[in-house]
Amino acid sequence: MFSFRVCAGLVGCRIGICVRSLRSCPGITIDEEVAKLLELKAQLGGDDGKHQFVLKTAKGTRDYNPKQMAIREKVFNTIISCFKRHGAETIDTPVFELKETLTGKYGEDSKLIYDLKDQGGELLSLRYDLTVPFARYLAMNKITNIKRYHIAKVYRRDNPAMTRGRYREFYQCDFDIAGQYDPMIPDAECLKIVHEILSELDLGEFRIKVNDRRILDGMFAVCGVPADKFRTICSTVDKLDKMSWEDVKNEMVNEKGLSEEAADHIGEYVSLQGGMDLAERLLQDQKLSQSKEACAGLSDMKLLFSYLQIFQVTDKVVFDLSLARGLDYYTGIIYEAVLTQVGVVPAPVSTEAQNGAAEETVSVGSVAGGGRYDGLVGMFDPKSRKVPCVGVSIGIERVFSIMEQKAEASAEKVRTTEVQVMVASAQKNLLEERLKLTTELWNAGIKAEVMYKKNPKLLSQLQHCEDSGIPLVAILGEQELKDGVVKLRTVATREEVWQGCWQLTPVSLCLNSAQVCCSVT
Amino acid sequence: MFSFRVCAGLVGCRIGICVRSLRSCPGITIDEEVAKLLELKAQLGGDDGKHQFVLKTAKGTRDYNPKQMAIREKVFNTIISCFKRHGAETIDTPVFELKETLTGKYGEDSKLIYDLKDQGGELLSLRYDLTVPFARYLAMNKITNIKRYHIAKVYRRDNPAMTRGRYREFYQCDFDIAGQYDPMIPDAECLKIVHEILSELDLGEFRIKVNDRRILDGMFAVCGVPADKFRTICSTVDKLDKMSWEDVKNEMVNEKGLSEEAADHIGEYVSLQGGMDLAERLLQDQKLSQSKEACAGLSDMKLLFSYLQIFQVTDKVVFDLSLARGLDYYTGIIYEAVLTQVGVVPAPVSTEAQNGAAEETVSVGSVAGGGRYDGLVGMFDPKSRKVPCVGVSIGIERVFSIMEQKAEASAEKVRTTEVQVMVASAQKNLLEERLKLTTELWNAGIKAEVMYKKNPKLLSQLQHCEDSGIPLVAILGEQELKDGVVKLRTVATREEVWQGCWQLTPVSLCLNSAQVCCSVT
Repeated sequence: MFSFRVCAGLVGCRIGICVRSLRSCPGITIDEEVAKLLELKAQLGGDDGKHQFVLKTAKGTRDYNPKQMAIREKVFNTIISCFKRHGAETIDTPVFELKETLTGKYGEDSKLIYDLKDQGGELLSLRYDLTVPFARYLAMNKITNIKRYHIAKVYRRDNPAMTRGRYREFYQCDFDIAGQYDPMIPDAECLKIVHEILSELDLGEFRIKVNDRRILDGMFAVCGVPADKFRTICSTVDKLDKMSWEDVKNEMVNEKGLSEEAADHIGEYVSLQGGMDLAERLLQDQKLSQSKEACAGLSDMKLLFSYLQIFQVTDKVVFDLSLARGLDYYTGIIYEAVLTQVGVVPAPVSTEAQNGAAEETVSVGSVAGGGRYDGLVGMFDPKSRKVPCVGVSIGIERVFSIMEQKAEASAEKVRTTEVQVMVASAQKNLLEERLKLTTELWNAGIKAEVMYKKNPKLLSQLQHCEDSGIPLVAILGEQELKDGVVKLRTVATREEVWQGCWQLTPVSLCLNSAQVCCSVT
Repeated sequence: MFSFRVCAGLVGCRIGICVRSLRSCPGITIDEEVAKLLELKAQLGGDDGKHQFVLKTAKGTRDYNPKQMAIREKVFNTIISCFKRHGAETIDTPVFELKETLTGKYGEDSKLIYDLKDQGGELLSLRYDLTVPFARYLAMNKITNIKRYHIAKVYRRDNPAMTRGRYREFYQCDFDIAGQYDPMIPDAECLKIVHEILSELDLGEFRIKVNDRRILDGMFAVCGVPADKFRTICSTVDKLDKMSWEDVKNEMVNEKGLSEEAADHIGEYVSLQGGMDLAERLLQDQKLSQSKEACAGLSDMKLLFSYLQIFQVTDKVVFDLSLARGLDYYTGIIYEAVLTQVGVVPAPVSTEAQNGAAEETVSVGSVAGGGRYDGLVGMFDPKSRKVPCVGVSIGIERVFSIMEQKAEASAEKVRTTEVQVMVASAQKNLLEERLKLTTELWNAGIKAEVMYKKNPKLLSQLQHCEDSGIPLVAILGEQELKDGVVKLRTVATREEVWQGCWQLTPVSLCLNSAQVCCSVT
């Protein structure tokens, strides 16, 4: 038993005792105490004088306005078409998981996980990525093979540079192939997919770096890195795309206690880049060939490049020994796509250097990344049955911000609706007729708008078309109603034609003009 | 200053003193104490012996498997097409809001809001619906008119009957028109949209009930309900679709203290149903016509029906005085669509009766609902500037579960991929040739799959086509390669044709057969 004080200045000094005392004390009611303290806080807050209400979104989050949504939709459509072309299904998982599902999966980044308040019942956390929920889904449903994509928001309590397109709530866009297959075929398809998507999104020149965890580990072994330092040295190597070799070496030697000789050895290897030829050469390398692991990785790298040749993507793929990637769960091939064209590459983001393990924060200009993770699903299976997986995550937030910049720079206006025709009138008292024509158009499947005013001005109706990019206006007037026609005006050219055939009463549009509307857009 | 004990049996007795002491104590560090206690709890939990890991999703949530996703996509496409046909833009908001943004918007349902843990920084809650974030968005961006849809998940700590398609995480699908317009035009368009969507989804017969808050309030006034009881009597009236009039009357009289006479008066009105004629008749009603509010509502109801006639939707719309709807923020017209065909209507859900105010839980068989809320945006505006709004929410989770039931009952298989052709081989050692042909198909934009095996059995390749509904198989063999053709097999009929023209080395498909693949699906 113990006591502690809640008032300022006297707090916190006895927590060590608390823990020890509580451990030997059955029937602890910490939950109750927490609830009471929080209630207390709420009460105190409520008495805090007149509270100023702040009109904002939560820190690190943003609304998407219609223009941003239009760009987002276009990007999604391109990416989803590619996933579908490769025969992928899609799944969805809840935005929160049991807290313990996420525990032990993200190393020290676990501190960035959003927890839900304990309101009684299960302890929950917001998903941190889509890979762990995917692995949980496979294990839970005993699925041993699937090719799926999943596009959804994930949550990280980071301090992101939002001006550069990084947020606490952001999209991930994952494609994964799970199943026991012959080596490197699904791995090569993932790279083919990255190649297709980046080409189609038209983001400029890009390069896809590939490496293999087994090659890295073999390299570390033959360079004399102690086995227990593989992961930490690996995460230092991962910084090579944002730090000079000198700084990386310095970190290895002075911070992580590696011998200078070992660091220099590593330095020689990580400067190597090539293709299948490099893999062949390294298989002959006196030192590296002593590592069975490295040899397995290098043989698979050769096989991978043979498939990449068939897939016609070797123009962009580079075997790069400096590619490490932060996440612990990779077991084989790893890859990362970077934009290489100056101008479209977002500026370096300071928080990234501190957070190398986060999936989408791997490097400056990185727009996709992934690799093979054969052990993750087994972590969820009660019998540790493994389901080999390989996958890729498209850095879609970075793609959004590049596309937004491009749209901003372009003269062409981003349309936020798909309206094909505006039903307008030049004269008063034609609301009913406008609504009737609009109904006809809707019923014929045509995207049509009408102003919600009894007597809108023609100018404001035309202005609305200009503003929102509606290509056609159907203009009603007394004379047109008498003649059974409608005046169709092309907004861009101001050309006008009269389209027949109308019935006088009720006004109804013949299919003819409906087709005109359709064929324009 | 004070102290309290954390061990069992001695806890909680001094909290009253705490609150008083703390209020007069500056620099309180309750947050720190809470954090420490929770940390303590985590530590204790960790030492709790071997913990049994539970492989499940959080209570009240579910994964969507590929089949459910295929159905979901189809439903979304139908609904989004309709919204776009009516010229709507779309927006998105974060999944969590500042807690205070949600405070005071949901009455006693606020207890169902998910809060995030206080991990330092802002206090956050998961969104409870899409309407409050929409109003926050309008006020924050000073938008005075917009027509937008928003489809996203919302969160309620309810105890839902999940077997009946109700969850703690579920989709809402909202369409709203904000802006100062001439009366009843946007309101009528919302009903037109409900009519279009329910017709296109082909869910069976439906009816759209409409009423007006002003008519209800006027009716309560002339029936002698005290003004401070309008809302509570209104929520009792709202139960008429799941309770008999006797039970409703009983609740009014015995629970809510209404006079029996007033209740009987209400009973007469709420049994009325009709169309424009009923609105006209009630405008002549001796009692009701004494209420200015009721008259305003009834005149607008007449106007609404005149627009509904133009929109050609009066076949499904009923002016029903028993429709009340739970949410407090409605100020004018309200409506609700119900399925009337026996068989597809989900069974009554017990929790609904307790939770009449929840948007999507309004009634058995309810698949859409909404109304006019002219005051909500003003609640967020520092100067209380009003932005009139009218909107509708499609009960999309109910639609999903009906569609899933229909798919289950149907003989037709739900496809989860869109693959058009499987590239197979009957003989060994043709992996490269299969991959080459697949590459050609992908590059031509055709959805194609290939097995990730060096030497798959023809039978297992054909079986995969049967299982996933792939209509065509392109079969490669030595002879075909020599002849420069590919055998195209239609899976359903087992018909086979040889398609030219191939080059011998490298194998490449001529556009001809690519077109065949395309034209089949």
